[in-house]
Formats: sequence, structure tokens, C-alpha cells
Amino acid sequence: MRSPKGTRDFYPPEMAVRQHIEGAWRKASVIHGFEEIEGPNFEHLELYTLKSGDGIVSELFSFRRQGGDDDYALRPEFTPTLARMAAAKGNSVTRPIKWFAVPSHFRAERPQRGRLREFRQWNVDMLGLDDPSADAEVVSTAISALVALGLGPEDFVVRLSHRDAVAAALGALGVKEDSMRSAFELLDRRDKIEPEEFARRAGALGLDESALAGFDRLARTRHPLTTPMSTIADTAGLPASVLAPMEAYREAMEAAGLSAFCEWDLGIVRGLAYYTGGVFEIHDIGGKERAIAGGGRYDGLVELFGGPPTSAVGFGMGDVVLGLMLEERGLVESVTPPSPDVFVVCGGDDAAAEAMPRILGELRRAGFHARRSYRSTRNVGKLLGEAAKSGARSAVILGREFEAGEVTIKDLESGEQRTAAIADLVESLGGNKEQS
Amino acid sequence: MRSPKGTRDFYPPEMAVRQHIEGAWRKASVIHGFEEIEGPNFEHLELYTLKSGDGIVSELFSFRRQGGDDDYALRPEFTPTLARMAAAKGNSVTRPIKWFAVPSHFRAERPQRGRLREFRQWNVDMLGLDDPSADAEVVSTAISALVALGLGPEDFVVRLSHRDAVAAALGALGVKEDSMRSAFELLDRRDKIEPEEFARRAGALGLDESALAGFDRLARTRHPLTTPMSTIADTAGLPASVLAPMEAYREAMEAAGLSAFCEWDLGIVRGLAYYTGGVFEIHDIGGKERAIAGGGRYDGLVELFGGPPTSAVGFGMGDVVLGLMLEERGLVESVTPPSPDVFVVCGGDDAAAEAMPRILGELRRAGFHARRSYRSTRNVGKLLGEAAKSGARSAVILGREFEAGEVTIKDLESGEQRTAAIADLVESLGGNKEQS
Repeated sequence: MRSPKGTRDFYPPEMAVRQHIEGAWRKASVIHGFEEIEGPNFEHLELYTLKSGDGIVSELFSFRRQGGDDDYALRPEFTPTLARMAAAKGNSVTRPIKWFAVPSHFRAERPQRGRLREFRQWNVDMLGLDDPSADAEVVSTAISALVALGLGPEDFVVRLSHRDAVAAALGALGVKEDSMRSAFELLDRRDKIEPEEFARRAGALGLDESALAGFDRLARTRHPLTTPMSTIADTAGLPASVLAPMEAYREAMEAAGLSAFCEWDLGIVRGLAYYTGGVFEIHDIGGKERAIAGGGRYDGLVELFGGPPTSAVGFGMGDVVLGLMLEERGLVESVTPPSPDVFVVCGGDDAAAEAMPRILGELRRAGFHARRSYRSTRNVGKLLGEAAKSGARSAVILGREFEAGEVTIKDLESGEQRTAAIADLVESLGGNKEQS
Repeated sequence: MRSPKGTRDFYPPEMAVRQHIEGAWRKASVIHGFEEIEGPNFEHLELYTLKSGDGIVSELFSFRRQGGDDDYALRPEFTPTLARMAAAKGNSVTRPIKWFAVPSHFRAERPQRGRLREFRQWNVDMLGLDDPSADAEVVSTAISALVALGLGPEDFVVRLSHRDAVAAALGALGVKEDSMRSAFELLDRRDKIEPEEFARRAGALGLDESALAGFDRLARTRHPLTTPMSTIADTAGLPASVLAPMEAYREAMEAAGLSAFCEWDLGIVRGLAYYTGGVFEIHDIGGKERAIAGGGRYDGLVELFGGPPTSAVGFGMGDVVLGLMLEERGLVESVTPPSPDVFVVCGGDDAAAEAMPRILGELRRAGFHARRSYRSTRNVGKLLGEAAKSGARSAVILGREFEAGEVTIKDLESGEQRTAAIADLVESLGGNKEQS
């Protein structure tokens, strides 16, 4: 009996790492003023086909209830749920809406390194503020979590692009307005298509050989955030004006102090049809070039789900690639389940042993994380070894002095010992943690 | 577009309540020395049919991957996952294993008040300690969370029973050993079956009219934990000796200081076939008599999943009935999403407005939960109203003095104002929260 292929069992050590990552996600979200939401783990199948077309169905785990006739699917991403929830509230919630979520997601794809059938994904979204400062605020939130986890500009980069600028460049190079969507989809799959086949399809969309070469230079050259637009446009032989939509996007990132983490990469187009403006991906630059996160503007989606017209920007960051990155860099080696405050051992007589549950109960009611040894030995040396191994700060020893109403408290760091009255044990350990 | 029937959307206010409940669950678990685990949201279907028989299938959401031939099911409970995970580790983990989990569960039943198709359930389990003190430790953990949530002995009761004692009583009343399992299943469904039908079936299992009446009195009378066994056995005209297995169970509960929360209720048999010893349910006693939690010993389960023989005890507590209870008692009215530490408003010129993202960035990097107003007004009075509404402790006002490198800090509780240099803003607000 094993867990299904592509899913994970989290034993305490792995769960501690997961909580560490999710804790950083939650904290970054909260300090940036986002509030947590959550939806169901499965949704009506139409929620996904409405957004992504029927082609999505083979990538989903879908099902019906026995005897029922509703089609459901395990959620593969959070954005449709978020858009549905925002649409349901109409205009009754103050804008901008700043929501985040840390849900599970499910995809029926072939499991491989960095891609699983069930994973956790942090989603941060800001709805109702049609201003690049909103884009900068969500990017800042993503960076904040990665920095809290110990990563810096030497580990990851935020690659920015802008679909309006890319569209203007493609238009200037010969792509007609009604072929734009197909051109984005093609560009997004560039590295998965044979060059000849790619050139043939690009030609059909209006990009001749020289235009394609120009665009290829534009899309394959990365630039620091502060590079003049004319320098970037030059790579495709285009005037700087086509890249005008990027100006305000850059200014917002600079104003938020994010320049050191960002660069331009117009090769990023985020093929998904619903993106509408600035888009970005965060990449591991430690040699592996893996995407850690991706997002951007999707101004039409809430309306698609029946809500009012709503500008929107957000991103998703999964736990799988990020977890591998942190592990490779040794940043989660010291992350372990919580250590106890107190470890109680019994070296005394049967009366002391019988009092153990009561003493543990008192410590725990006072808010102490208290553990005991379950071994039958009353060899205090062995028991203190177990206490030290647990990482406890203090040991409480029920020994010979128990009969006289006293216990020994040993500081497991300094090794110092002192005697305390049983009645004052909580006080002696620093007082009630619930009230402090 | 709505969420599927029997599932919930958690907007920030509902999510805050959910986090409040789950926080109490986690804290009670950790202070009692349990470590968190998690498994997949779906498992191989056989994991559930192996434990519960093919009859379980209609209660599950089951599915296959398109083109795949493995049958999966959304997990309806955590115990099979836990037993599988424990079995997979064999004897390589130190006993006792003390694990808890806060997973989502899914049941394809008809949604009604208190019963949903997706819910959260706290699971606490202790494996490898064949002693009633383990039973008492998990019961203590459950009580600890309920008390932390504001409930007390006037709100809930832990109803204890013991399958060995009930079996001995049934045996003494005429049920043969090989009918015992059917007798438990019948007793568990007592209140769902017409009295005549119930009597007919009980008769077939060996309980004649007088034995059935005796058992009925035994099962329908509740007793304080400290009631002599002879008094309890008398209700069925049986000798106290049949209830002997309950003695050690009671002693363990008393030793852990839980008497005030516990009573005997031999009507609780927990029909599920895998329970083996002491069993319990926690009930709301505020008039509605709803079960909040249920659990007990299940010594054979880890072995069933291919592990070594392992004694085990644990419980599950769902979030739906508990949430209703807390709401009805007004215990979650003041539970809201986190309030900001600082709210930044701009009453100054354009330079001050432009500096807003940078100042927010500095505050957040120093660990402050910092928000801003997104309104275009620079009317400080209105903006401070928004700041107060957010629940922020302080407001930072970028006003006329911004040009001189200064801001105003207003304590939103006392109303006191002071001026601070922008360069010292973090210091002036109490210093870097990350380092403190």
C-alpha cells in the first residue's frame, strides 16, 4: 500500500519544511496587507472549461458522485476559484480586494522532478486597482517570502515582460490584430516546437523571416530593468515607442525598490489566453533556470465568471520547485518539528510515576510544550539523555525528593540544576505562557 | 457559477475563524508532544475498501485518470492514510509514535446542517503504547483544544465506553462470540431502526426480550466517571466483573485530571469494525447533543495495512459542528483577519505620494504589517478614518513636513502624535520586528 503516484506523504520532518515554506508565504502576504481565503478542493468542471476550453479536461482529475449528474474536477489552479468568489461578491467588497491563499492543487500529468500530481501553491491576487503599483505590490510580496526563506538576488530573478508591448512589437513586425492570440500561444511554446515548424507557423501568422529573426533577438535578450527602451527595441530594429507600455511598469517596480531583483525578458509571454498586461516569472538562477512562480495581469477574468469588470493582477508559486531549491542550498537542514519546552522524567518511586500525567497536564494547561519518556526505566541518566535528544530546554525530574513535595529542574543547555516545590512548578519554569 | 453543493468558500472573515479553530487544534497537539503529518487528498480506492469493505464506495468520490486504470478516491477520513504511513515505516520509528494532522476530507453524502461534502478534521493518534495512559493523553489533547476555544464542562462532555466491557456484558446476556461483531453494528444503528425490527434482529443474535431490556438500561443510563462498577452493572442485572476492562481506563482518565469532563455512556460502541478497546465521543451538551469528536483504540489497523502489530488510539474532530457550536455561543464574534501594525496615509505633495511604495517596502522588510489607502484623496481626516477602521495601531502620515525629511506618527489608540525623521521611521515605530 503506497500513496498514489505523484503525491507525497509528509512525515514530521517533511511537514516541518512544508510549514516553514507556508509560514513564509503567509507572513509575506499578511505584512503586505493581503487576507487569506480558501475554496473547495474540487469545483464544477465547467469552471475550468469556461476559462481554458475543453482541452483542459485531459489534464484534470474529474469525477461524478455515484448516481449524480454533476461533473466535478479537482482544482488544478486557484485563479478560477478566486475569480468565481470575487464575481459572487459583485461590488459589495471594498476595492482593491487583496486576497491570498495556500491551497492544494491537482494535475493529471506525468509526474517528474519538480512536477507532481498534487502540490501546494501560494496565490496572491489584487483586484480592482488598475495601476502598475498593484503589479509591483504583488511582485514585492513574492520577493519578500523568498528573501525570508534565505534566498537573494544571487539565487532568483524576477523576469518581467508586458503583453501590450510584445503585441505592439509583433504588430510592427507584421502580425495582424486577429492573429495576435495565436502568435502569443505559438511564442509561448517556442522551445517545444522544431525550428522549421515554428518558422512555418510564424510565417502563416504574418512574420516573415527577417521579422521573425528580429523578434527572436527581442525575445531572447535579457536586459537590466533600467535599460533605455530604445536599446531594447533596437534588438528587433523597432522604434522605442512600441515598448511604451513597459515604462509605467518599470517605474512602479523601481518605486517599490525592487530593481535589484528584476530584469526584462520579453520572451516571457505567459501563453494563457487570459493575461492582459504586465506578466512575470520568477526563476531559479542557480544553474537550473527553473520557474518558481508566474503571474501577471488578467483584467477580464472576473467578468468572465459573471462579476463586474475588474482589473486584476496576481501570481502563483508552487512548493515543489521552491522546496528543491531550498534543499539544494542547505536552507532547510535546520528546520525541524517544534522542540519541547520541558521534558519530564521519573527517577523516583511509584507515587512519582503515578503523578506524571497530572504534572504533564498542569504544564500543558499553562501553555508549556511538555513531553515525557515512555520508557519503563527509572535510570535518570538515560532519561536525561532522551530529554536532551528531544531538544527540550528544561528537564523536570521526579526523583527521591518527590515525596517531600519537590522536583528538580535541570537547564539542559547550561546543565544547572535547582529544586522547586511541585506546587510552584509552573512559576519556577517562568510562569503561565498563556497569560504572558 | 457557485461552489459545489456541500462545499464552502472561505472569505477572509470565515477563513479567520477557520484559522482560529485550526490554530487551537495545532497548539493543543504540539504542547501534548504530537508532531504534524499530512498525506495526499486522494488515495488508492483499495485503501478504503480494505478497511471498510466495498459498501464504502458509494459514500466516496472516486475517479480514474483519463486513460489510466488506477482507481482513486478523495479521502473520507484520515485513519487509513495514517495506518498506511505508519505501516510503511515498519519498526524504524521510535515508539510511541505521536502524530496529528489537520486534513481536508470528502464524503459523497447528502449535505445537511453539520454535515458537508468537504470539511476539515483534526486527527490525533498515538501508536505503539498499549496502555490506557495513551488513551488519556489523546482525550486530554482534545479537551485542551476545546478549552482553548472557550468551551468548558458546561458546554461539552467526553462520553467514555469500552468495547471489551460491552462485549462481556453482551456475552453474559446471551450473545455468542461469533455474533459479537453483528451485535456491535446493530447497537450502533439502534436509533435508526424501528423498535420491532431492532428487537427481532437482537433476538436473532441471542438477546431475548429480558436480556435486551437489561442491555437497553445499561446502554441508556449515563454515569459519572467515579460511579462504582457494581452500580453500573446493576442496571443490566449483571455482576460488576463484566465491566472490569473499564477500571484501568477510568484510572488513566482520573490520573490525567480529566474527571470533570468525562462520563460513562455504554451506549457508545462506535460501530466501525476496527475499534478494539476504549472508545469515546465528545458531545455538545448545549441542548443539541451533537457529536463533536469520536475515537478510541484500533489495535489491529496498522497490521492490516502491512505493518508490524501496533497498538493504536486516536480521535477525529471535524470543523463543521464545532464551528456551529462556537458561533452559537458567540465565541468567534471577535475573531477577525490580522489588523495592521501601521497604516500609511499621504496628505502631502506628489513627492510624498511617490515615496509611498518605498516607505511601505521599508516597513514590511522590517517585519511590520503595513497597509496604505488606495484612495486618491489627500484629505488626512478621511484617510485617518480609513486607518482607524483597519484596526491599525499606528498611522504614518506623509504630510507637509515630508519635504523636510519628516513624517508624523499617530498612535490610533491614544490619539497622540509625534514627528519622526523618515530615516528613523522603523526605529521610531519600535525597531525591526524581524530581529526582536
